[in-house]
Amino acid sequence: MRYFVTGGAGFIGSNMVDRLLGLGHEVVVYDNFSTGRREFLENAGKYESFTLIEGDTLDLEKLKKSMAGCEFVFHFAANADVRMGCEHPKKDLEQNTIATFHVLEAMRENSIRKIGFSSTGSVYGEAAVIPTPEDAPFPVQTSLYAASKLAGEGMIAAYCEGFDFTAYIFRFVSILGERYTHGHVFDFYRKLQEDPDKLYILGNGKQRKSYLYVQDCLDAILTVIEKAQEKVNIYNLGTDEYCEVNDSAGWISEKMGLSPVFEYAGGERGWIGDNPFIYLDTAKVRGLGWTPKYSIKDGVLKTVEFLERNTWVFDVRD
Amino acid sequence: MRYFVTGGAGFIGSNMVDRLLGLGHEVVVYDNFSTGRREFLENAGKYESFTLIEGDTLDLEKLKKSMAGCEFVFHFAANADVRMGCEHPKKDLEQNTIATFHVLEAMRENSIRKIGFSSTGSVYGEAAVIPTPEDAPFPVQTSLYAASKLAGEGMIAAYCEGFDFTAYIFRFVSILGERYTHGHVFDFYRKLQEDPDKLYILGNGKQRKSYLYVQDCLDAILTVIEKAQEKVNIYNLGTDEYCEVNDSAGWISEKMGLSPVFEYAGGERGWIGDNPFIYLDTAKVRGLGWTPKYSIKDGVLKTVEFLERNTWVFDVRD
Repeated sequence: MRYFVTGGAGFIGSNMVDRLLGLGHEVVVYDNFSTGRREFLENAGKYESFTLIEGDTLDLEKLKKSMAGCEFVFHFAANADVRMGCEHPKKDLEQNTIATFHVLEAMRENSIRKIGFSSTGSVYGEAAVIPTPEDAPFPVQTSLYAASKLAGEGMIAAYCEGFDFTAYIFRFVSILGERYTHGHVFDFYRKLQEDPDKLYILGNGKQRKSYLYVQDCLDAILTVIEKAQEKVNIYNLGTDEYCEVNDSAGWISEKMGLSPVFEYAGGERGWIGDNPFIYLDTAKVRGLGWTPKYSIKDGVLKTVEFLERNTWVFDVRD
Repeated sequence: MRYFVTGGAGFIGSNMVDRLLGLGHEVVVYDNFSTGRREFLENAGKYESFTLIEGDTLDLEKLKKSMAGCEFVFHFAANADVRMGCEHPKKDLEQNTIATFHVLEAMRENSIRKIGFSSTGSVYGEAAVIPTPEDAPFPVQTSLYAASKLAGEGMIAAYCEGFDFTAYIFRFVSILGERYTHGHVFDFYRKLQEDPDKLYILGNGKQRKSYLYVQDCLDAILTVIEKAQEKVNIYNLGTDEYCEVNDSAGWISEKMGLSPVFEYAGGERGWIGDNPFIYLDTAKVRGLGWTPKYSIKDGVLKTVEFLERNTWVFDVRD
């Protein structure tokens, strides 16, 4: 099978690329390297079945040409910065909503009808039901990031109805692991490298969050694509546990051999639109036989180990 | 109060404009006349408190300038053609999703923080619960039109969270009444004018739909804006009844004094993404004291009367 992976040089994308190549598939990566890293494709570059195209999802014509001959599209490219939406509202619209429309149009142009899409558990807003199942009460959006992912989900589902596409939509908790280059573990690690004596935490540290290790995430995605039978297949992906930001900060500090004082910005939320409790019901994906192999703590520790071995990811780029 | 009304020359928009002017408010209409009609603003033009600006919601700079001094925005401008999404997928993205983003940005630029938005009951897709309440199970989208309205709802809610906006989002059933220029009554009336002996009906005629008369719709909108207290106020608007397309076709024929043979395209759905059963739970808006004064049949008959008095609306325009 020939896969097309947008954002294939990014965190989840590049891990999926390695997985697909290892399974013997052909892979075309399409990435603009705005947040993706060439280093994450070093392993992929060893495969003859690998093609790299440097391109932007906002460049519809290039996207259309680049997809020729592919049979399945993983659309991972996105502005994944959930916190800063209010500082540049256009970014989520362009890089998530409009980019997803372009991916769908490029697929239609090339008669490709299968898409895997990275959505987010943030689409549940401040969920009325926790753990939150896929058919939770119709939520109210609380961030531009989640609103743009929901817009993507909606268009994808409409293409399934209108153009006979099949979609696999994944509502992730935060993903952790190798090649992780943003989010709280990344931020805490960097802050503790700069000042090992104290750690400044957004909110009151009691925000409860759920996380999933990236290899477990890939297993889940591939299980769903193999087994799910609907036209529009929507699955929560996460572990059956959550932790407080304080727990995670403690694990990170301990792993680094540090005992910093935690200082808090205060408030229930770390930022505007932050959800103080994210915990997804994953019974649906477990029903397909998938189960995570790693705990949240495992994922946090593996992420710290990756950062320790790859301090170059902290280098500021142009 | 100075209101800004996008799509103010359209069906619902122009009726709202007349209502607001009659209540003594100032009104700025912003319309590109792609589907709006100058004739619908004849009454409004008699008021000194009325201003017309011919402009497109895709022209962000003009939109920003035009909103200056307004305190409340009704965003009615939209591509309202739910059926033809698959023939021009970009139209819903541009005229609904991106246009709504522009309206929000123009509001932010002008420090206007209150918005009324015409969404649609179609966002419930093929609802799992009927009558469908606002907090129905998280739906799967079935049309690009509904997906684009949902995208609009999501951005609006995120602006409420991020920029302290207050929003009044209305999920309409189909609206009927004076100045109605698209939809099944319009189509049936035109077809019966052309051929009084037979009426070709999309689907099997057994699709069950709900409708609301436009003046009842305006009453409901103004009641919600007066009484609802949340940051994001989402309300279904509809009657507590539904009818079959066959019923409506019969009322229209009878009103026109005709006895046509009904011919059917067949199938449960009139078009791709058509929902064979739309019926919204309106307990929430009724809880605010609103109740419709007219039945679905009243609304259909009033629409036919309007079309009889205004056959010019059928004239093809450039």
